[in-house]
Amino acid sequence: MNTADDFDHLGLNISPDIDTVMYTLAGCVNAETGWGRRDETWSFMAATEALGGETWFRLGDRDLAVHVERTRWLRAGETLSDVTRHLTRAFGVASEILPMCDEPVATIVETSEGSLAFQEYFVARQCRPQLISYRFKGAEGAWLRPEVAARIATARVILLGPSNPFVSIAPILAVPGLLDALKARRVPLVAVSPIIGGEAIKGPAAKMMRELGLECSSAGVAEFYGDLLDGFVIDNADARLAGSIAASRLLIADTVMAAEGAAARLAKDVLAFACRLAE
Amino acid sequence: MNTADDFDHLGLNISPDIDTVMYTLAGCVNAETGWGRRDETWSFMAATEALGGETWFRLGDRDLAVHVERTRWLRAGETLSDVTRHLTRAFGVASEILPMCDEPVATIVETSEGSLAFQEYFVARQCRPQLISYRFKGAEGAWLRPEVAARIATARVILLGPSNPFVSIAPILAVPGLLDALKARRVPLVAVSPIIGGEAIKGPAAKMMRELGLECSSAGVAEFYGDLLDGFVIDNADARLAGSIAASRLLIADTVMAAEGAAARLAKDVLAFACRLAE
Repeated sequence: MNTADDFDHLGLNISPDIDTVMYTLAGCVNAETGWGRRDETWSFMAATEALGGETWFRLGDRDLAVHVERTRWLRAGETLSDVTRHLTRAFGVASEILPMCDEPVATIVETSEGSLAFQEYFVARQCRPQLISYRFKGAEGAWLRPEVAARIATARVILLGPSNPFVSIAPILAVPGLLDALKARRVPLVAVSPIIGGEAIKGPAAKMMRELGLECSSAGVAEFYGDLLDGFVIDNADARLAGSIAASRLLIADTVMAAEGAAARLAKDVLAFACRLAE
Repeated sequence: MNTADDFDHLGLNISPDIDTVMYTLAGCVNAETGWGRRDETWSFMAATEALGGETWFRLGDRDLAVHVERTRWLRAGETLSDVTRHLTRAFGVASEILPMCDEPVATIVETSEGSLAFQEYFVARQCRPQLISYRFKGAEGAWLRPEVAARIATARVILLGPSNPFVSIAPILAVPGLLDALKARRVPLVAVSPIIGGEAIKGPAAKMMRELGLECSSAGVAEFYGDLLDGFVIDNADARLAGSIAASRLLIADTVMAAEGAAARLAKDVLAFACRLAE
């Protein structure tokens, strides 16, 4: 999991990507927003607003319990990996969620409006400033955790989800040793394109590609990942691009995860595709 | 205000006495419990419980906003006095609430079950352990703030409310220089007895008096304050004790603040009594 979106807010350690995945796997994510918890209440935020406090990053009352517990455990000396294990267990999530590292790494974007911390760019300014470049502050001091290396070494296939390649996948690859570990794999690595018909289903990926001067298409995404890919998954709508995509093996599928069961079906298709590549 | 009940809980700086007075003056206290906020929601606490977190100290969602803001401001280097001024202003409280000091002071009670931090004794164990003694850790390192000294020096009368003499009033008197400042006053000092008919209206004052070997009565309270008092206010129910009370001047009044308007009426009566002593 990307932890370069993590930040300290109102004195609390917030790990947005970990929490979204945890809530989703626990079946308690707010499906409308795609972040935060279902059946949430907002009294804390309303009371904070009345005090003139910061409200640009919305923290629901139930969600807040996770941040307070995480902060408390981190201050007590636990690692983010330990805390994530405790939290996922408490939420009844059977899958393992591994932070990319335990050291703090922070995505910083250079924009037309200056250097911005990621959540400032992403949430407070809703990605409006023009992107010039991005970097992962602290990444050089991060360590590849043995558990992460072990999961990569023993995986049957490796999948990169249709996340933002620049600010969700690239930070993970920036952890020293992690890219080398991926390159040393003996199993297929498959990525799913987040770009369909030149636009991202959600988030700023397409806007970022254009501003970075990259070709804003699934072909551009494949080019960004380069020879890391054994296989690449594009949407039916991009079938005409098949010839121009560098990845050696392609799966053309319905990658829009809107309808009930669509995500599970896509996961199954992508997994089957990756397993075929392993044969 | 007594700040020796203050403690760090779930990584937050909690100031129970300041908040209760602030909420009361702001008209948003929970009248049923006597602490916390009216129209409160409890999603955070429920979610914390589900995570196996600590729930013995009940933090409502709206109340939590105050603790998060206070903690944030204290970490940014503000004093508790500064933070209290900001908060009371945000709550529209016109009266000044002055913490007894800005340095951390903590009431520690020695009990039949060992040494306990105040909230552990008061909330978690509901004052069940037998009290042996109490002390105010850190008081020797506290400073009398110039604002507090100035308010004492310029007050027309000084009133000690019917708070717990041992763990609410005594910590304030333990701030170096504060008792001397009170003794140097040229205006009347009047206390209201928290004990009526040998029992406290609320809280553990009576139980503590018995366990400390003091006479558990309004006479015992007057004796505890000794020659600090110019006047003392006891309840009508204790009128028969009038002869045995050491304080030179007595007001016998209805000190039970249960009915609508009773608190305001008592305040008026006590203030008038104190002003008469000044003549």
